Amino acid sequence: MLEEKSKELLKYLEESVEIVTKMGLKVTDFRSRYAKLTMPIEQNRNHIGTMYAGSLFTLGEMAGGAIFLASFDYENFYPIVKELTIRYRRPATTDMTVEVEMAAPQVERLQKAVEGNGKVDWDMNLELKDEGGEACCFVHGIWQMRKRDR
Amino acid sequence: MLEEKSKELLKYLEESVEIVTKMGLKVTDFRSRYAKLTMPIEQNRNHIGTMYAGSLFTLGEMAGGAIFLASFDYENFYPIVKELTIRYRRPATTDMTVEVEMAAPQVERLQKAVEGNGKVDWDMNLELKDEGGEACCFVHGIWQMRKRDR
Repeated sequence: MLEEKSKELLKYLEESVEIVTKMGLKVTDFRSRYAKLTMPIEQNRNHIGTMYAGSLFTLGEMAGGAIFLASFDYENFYPIVKELTIRYRRPATTDMTVEVEMAAPQVERLQKAVEGNGKVDWDMNLELKDEGGEACCFVHGIWQMRKRDR
Repeated sequence: MLEEKSKELLKYLEESVEIVTKMGLKVTDFRSRYAKLTMPIEQNRNHIGTMYAGSLFTLGEMAGGAIFLASFDYENFYPIVKELTIRYRRPATTDMTVEVEMAAPQVERLQKAVEGNGKVDWDMNLELKDEGGEACCFVHGIWQMRKRDR
């Protein structure tokens, strides 16, 4: 069962960007250093009935925000995406899911770095999978977390 | 003045993918081997008030479809995006625009290749610019056109 604090974070991920809310992105699992996000096919079909490339991009891109909230001090730092590559391997014909996880030592290292420098980059490779567990897209992203201005 | 045929193609670009229509993407110029697309900031703000990364991605990605329609035999072939990289250089705080153009010899070469092989890849570097003409994002995409099944 999700704690109250987690529920707030999920609501933030799902509702803080209006166009992402329109896509229907959902956080389907969320715990310390781990998140699972789902993009429904229904609101995101393209002209040939499969999932639109931009909605798949959003699923991968939002994984960066999700793992940030699941792992770091979000009251004093915030994430941005610096660069993202998505490779489309096969058409996405069902709801799509991404799982993202960060090991405790990496979290610790990055948290120390951002406290020292005010910002730090991290990169991740992600797979966007269909309901059959097939990887339809490969994502490589570089995100940066920064100290909030006070 | 746009011809009737061009108007149909523009309508297709703006309306064939529901979530892209919700973003408010517009084709603001369109002629043989050239297109200009605009993404409005209003429906596409993120949690900090600048344009959401996924809407910027869509602006770049749709440039591939637009130049395809402006350049190739769309009755017998169709485009897909294979891979796209977007690099965020600075925040996008206004409506954003991309211009895309293809030289006649390249169009000719690709058209011949797709007629011969049934498919052919092409790649493009694009800049997404704000109202002041500043490039806020750099895009590199690889698209493929394929023969339609009959």
